[in-house]
Amino acid sequence: MIKAYAVFEPGGELKPYEYDPGPLASDQVEIEVEHCGICHSDLSMIDNEWGMSQYPLVPGHEIIGTIGAVGADVTHLKPGQRVGLGWHSGYCMHCETCLSGDQNLCSAAESTIVGRHGGFADKVRASAASVVPLPEGVDPASAGPLFCGGITVFNPLVQYGISPNARVGVVGIGGLGHMALQFLNAWGCEVTAFTSSAAKREEALSLGAHHTLDSRDNDALAAAAGRFDLILSTVNVKLDWNAYLGTLKPKGRLHIVGATLEPLDVGAFSLILAQRSVSGSPVGSPVTIGKMLDFAARHDIKPVTESFSFEEINDAIAHLRNGKARYRVVLSR
Amino acid sequence: MIKAYAVFEPGGELKPYEYDPGPLASDQVEIEVEHCGICHSDLSMIDNEWGMSQYPLVPGHEIIGTIGAVGADVTHLKPGQRVGLGWHSGYCMHCETCLSGDQNLCSAAESTIVGRHGGFADKVRASAASVVPLPEGVDPASAGPLFCGGITVFNPLVQYGISPNARVGVVGIGGLGHMALQFLNAWGCEVTAFTSSAAKREEALSLGAHHTLDSRDNDALAAAAGRFDLILSTVNVKLDWNAYLGTLKPKGRLHIVGATLEPLDVGAFSLILAQRSVSGSPVGSPVTIGKMLDFAARHDIKPVTESFSFEEINDAIAHLRNGKARYRVVLSR
Repeated sequence: MIKAYAVFEPGGELKPYEYDPGPLASDQVEIEVEHCGICHSDLSMIDNEWGMSQYPLVPGHEIIGTIGAVGADVTHLKPGQRVGLGWHSGYCMHCETCLSGDQNLCSAAESTIVGRHGGFADKVRASAASVVPLPEGVDPASAGPLFCGGITVFNPLVQYGISPNARVGVVGIGGLGHMALQFLNAWGCEVTAFTSSAAKREEALSLGAHHTLDSRDNDALAAAAGRFDLILSTVNVKLDWNAYLGTLKPKGRLHIVGATLEPLDVGAFSLILAQRSVSGSPVGSPVTIGKMLDFAARHDIKPVTESFSFEEINDAIAHLRNGKARYRVVLSR
Repeated sequence: MIKAYAVFEPGGELKPYEYDPGPLASDQVEIEVEHCGICHSDLSMIDNEWGMSQYPLVPGHEIIGTIGAVGADVTHLKPGQRVGLGWHSGYCMHCETCLSGDQNLCSAAESTIVGRHGGFADKVRASAASVVPLPEGVDPASAGPLFCGGITVFNPLVQYGISPNARVGVVGIGGLGHMALQFLNAWGCEVTAFTSSAAKREEALSLGAHHTLDSRDNDALAAAAGRFDLILSTVNVKLDWNAYLGTLKPKGRLHIVGATLEPLDVGAFSLILAQRSVSGSPVGSPVTIGKMLDFAARHDIKPVTESFSFEEINDAIAHLRNGKARYRVVLSR
């Protein structure tokens, strides 16, 4: 039996919950969970905000642990090895997208907490292909958030071949944005944090931003016209997207990783006149997660975390829900 | 004196108009106009739809002619040489964008018919850098439309390195779309024309489409889910953009070249889940125009044109305004 914490209805409290996972499939591994981050998308799933939650629901998809058991066909992971597991717990592995190395975009990809149980538990299972070894030099206690929030902001740098010459703006200095600032600084870019909070200004600079720009100051936005190669938006609220587009250089890209539900009302002329793009992406592939972990180890990049025990799980969720997390909450055994 | 046709008020008729262009600047050439296409953006400028028209206005920016005179500093163009001139009649030539080869995105670029006089005339002037020699094998009588409509649909293939393996959809089979079908077929792509007109279906196939798709048939759109690498939209009306995004593969691009005034209400999730992009672009640089002309000559690609004399200019404009043009209208001397 796996000992987990589950919610039993939308928005409900987490309560102890045991389930029998059945026999281990030949392509799966079982991970003994040591740490598990709490992501905003865990809250969205708890609340059934996206209409795809199934209850009882065991959230948790920023998982660090050791391999406890491996399925009969698994040869590249061994019991005792320390690994991480993120948003995806499996891929079809035979579609054009998977075979091209873009497993994270597989339309049949399995999500760790959609229709199956995640990492708020003593054990979790996943297809071996979705599990990535944690390299030496990455601190297990703070690494969980790299597997969802971290890879979400790192992946665009790989996907679009962002140059260290690029001027990059980060919108939203929170759970995702604070990792983006660190990655972009180490990537060699000129980094600007868009923030309207005086309190976050100093923190953004300490996390790797070279400049900050008050996103509520229309004069400051106008003065930044044509400045950025890339703007990475991590927020999940509606902004004046055309004002942000105006701060992009010719050929610049506004890239959305924050799950904004409202339509992006982008003007066609904002795109056409300067050959700009608006794009979005989810988490990354296992190979890109591996590259991110090596990069994080080499540059000593760590999510800034606050630690709670698994027994304090409802307090931890309330802390995140109230907007108090600085910047990621991690449950530890 | 230059003998031209001008409009004197928004939406007005074209009337004979003479103006003195003054001395030829050292970096300019004077072109003796042989042919001039009429583009939808000439109508937009005649009507002051974009709020930047100045009257009297001499439209015309799809110009073919021979060099009549060259300025003192012009060494690469010679009198008698046959050339073309499109939307841009000059660039700053010193900004980062110009020096990177993207003169078409220069924020100080001069437009042939904005605040100066265009090609509905016996002569027109332009900065030599914006004038491109017409290679052997390109028919002068039909080449005018390549310099605005043609380069607008050709340029994205160069900018985004579209592979001949790509599956590409073209939305809008008109002045721009009919050239896009020819270019894409010769580029080696699998080409699908989106059209709701039975009459245009056969024409689209004869112009190079391998398939057609009825864009008003929701079942057909749903059946094309995840099919295209690129969709090129040439229309200037609002469509259900999220339905089109759904027909893109992972990493697919919806590229807008039609000057749609209404916002593109794109859903963030449509972009994020499959790493899709929405982008736009204007005409191309002089170098890309040159590549297009060579490609058109090699593959015998020609705009489908209807010819009018300069004296029939108001009839020609009415023909285009009434949506009767198949597919581009050209004035010839």
